Amino acid sequence: MNIAFIGLGIMGRPMALNLKKAGHTLFVYGRRPESVAPLADAGCTACASPAEAASQADVTIVIVSDTPDVETVLFGYDCVGDAARPGSVVVDMSTISPTATQAFAHKLEARGVDMLDAPVSGGEIGAVNATLSIMVGGKPAVFERVKPVFEAMGKNIVLVGDHGAGQVAKACNQIVVGVTIEAVAEALAFARKNGVDPARVRDALMGGFAGSRILEVHGKRMLDNDYTPGFKTKLHQKDINIVMETAKELGLALPGAALVMQHLNALMGTGGGELDSSAVMKIVERASGMERP
Amino acid sequence: MNIAFIGLGIMGRPMALNLKKAGHTLFVYGRRPESVAPLADAGCTACASPAEAASQADVTIVIVSDTPDVETVLFGYDCVGDAARPGSVVVDMSTISPTATQAFAHKLEARGVDMLDAPVSGGEIGAVNATLSIMVGGKPAVFERVKPVFEAMGKNIVLVGDHGAGQVAKACNQIVVGVTIEAVAEALAFARKNGVDPARVRDALMGGFAGSRILEVHGKRMLDNDYTPGFKTKLHQKDINIVMETAKELGLALPGAALVMQHLNALMGTGGGELDSSAVMKIVERASGMERP
Repeated sequence: MNIAFIGLGIMGRPMALNLKKAGHTLFVYGRRPESVAPLADAGCTACASPAEAASQADVTIVIVSDTPDVETVLFGYDCVGDAARPGSVVVDMSTISPTATQAFAHKLEARGVDMLDAPVSGGEIGAVNATLSIMVGGKPAVFERVKPVFEAMGKNIVLVGDHGAGQVAKACNQIVVGVTIEAVAEALAFARKNGVDPARVRDALMGGFAGSRILEVHGKRMLDNDYTPGFKTKLHQKDINIVMETAKELGLALPGAALVMQHLNALMGTGGGELDSSAVMKIVERASGMERP
Repeated sequence: MNIAFIGLGIMGRPMALNLKKAGHTLFVYGRRPESVAPLADAGCTACASPAEAASQADVTIVIVSDTPDVETVLFGYDCVGDAARPGSVVVDMSTISPTATQAFAHKLEARGVDMLDAPVSGGEIGAVNATLSIMVGGKPAVFERVKPVFEAMGKNIVLVGDHGAGQVAKACNQIVVGVTIEAVAEALAFARKNGVDPARVRDALMGGFAGSRILEVHGKRMLDNDYTPGFKTKLHQKDINIVMETAKELGLALPGAALVMQHLNALMGTGGGELDSSAVMKIVERASGMERP
């Protein structure tokens, strides 16, 4: 299949390479030459703009940072929206606003172009190993057409619902991950403040109802006081901000997610933006004077 | 072994029966005759007081409701503390205050009696099937002596640390379970308010970093709007109250656990005390006018 791939960052680069490996023809666009080079070396066609890439594609994949970036790629200068062929599909794999996603889908539809929102979870390792979870919103027939493309990049691929539903699922994922990190951080801080070894508490909790991937993976980072990412605080903050904005639009109170937002803000404000977001443990510890160096 | 068993409630009764089945000689005490009867039928000796039971035992197990109840059994009228033989072990399997536990252990030690705190998780089903998680605090040599007794009641048996460490681990367990329930409730409410099927979101999240026993088991209860316990709200409230009191004593801020305490309070105040504590979903829903009947 002819695939345009726009956005060659930490996630996009390995995802595009996996598509190339799966035998697809790739037209790639990235803002920085050093991101484009390894893909050109692998036989992809480097393009001068999103429009140039999209004009040659059956499927145009976009994976950039935030809602305004997607808007620029889709509807800005030299954009995908102007160039994509009628009958082709735009797949936005960025994590952005669910409501903006619906608006983008309807604008593309008016130009005869189908859209899927398909944000991912699983991080850089998932992108490299093609084991990403992919949460998809859009029409079932379009999903079926694009499914083989997804299968070259991920493992757990779920059509959640109509336009925006993929972004809603991703937002839910970020709520659960963020609030569960807070849960584990508070529990391990409680143990240490009581003079009990948090590592033994984690062992005791692992098999029971308190057991989770977060207790296992992020709990270990907290024990080791080593917040090498993983998933960076600045990105988790961006995602929870989408949750907060959407909750405000809808008139929905999410006090746990709001608390996590405040802890991510505090972490950003104290130089923690590049750390794994499980470093909210530092904020929990600092508040009660028990931060480790 | 000669075992005294004090407290024959929903948890204590099946635990005592499992000890009897394992070949131990049981001296049981419960406040209500209807709780004692099935154990007497099974060949246990019914006793008239905690003291009478403890006076004949190598190991005295206590599993009652709260800190004051344990204090009464151990040091009140006709109590275990007066009757337990020097060299015997008192095992408190109730969920109570870690700091009170340390005081109780030292008081018993002064009388030549060893103590272990050994609260459990796993609920009535775990008690019946002898698959409880048992979190133990106390001396390693005493733990080793009592271990075969634990093995007749549970599966995941961990010596966490010194006196009170079992209670600390249990408190950590209740923090993680409570805050993770909040995480899942907010995420599924966010999905529904966005018009997306929460069941599909749960499916999409299950395999990834958001995956947990809570998302699986309690998430299902939320989807079904069926809060048959499980673990009752009034007991989770009691346990998080222990966390809040201990955090106050220690000067430790736990904002996530505090939020869960407020939601459990609201649930108690609206007739939800007998529901599974995942019914905090009702409070999340009610706040934004989306409660289901």
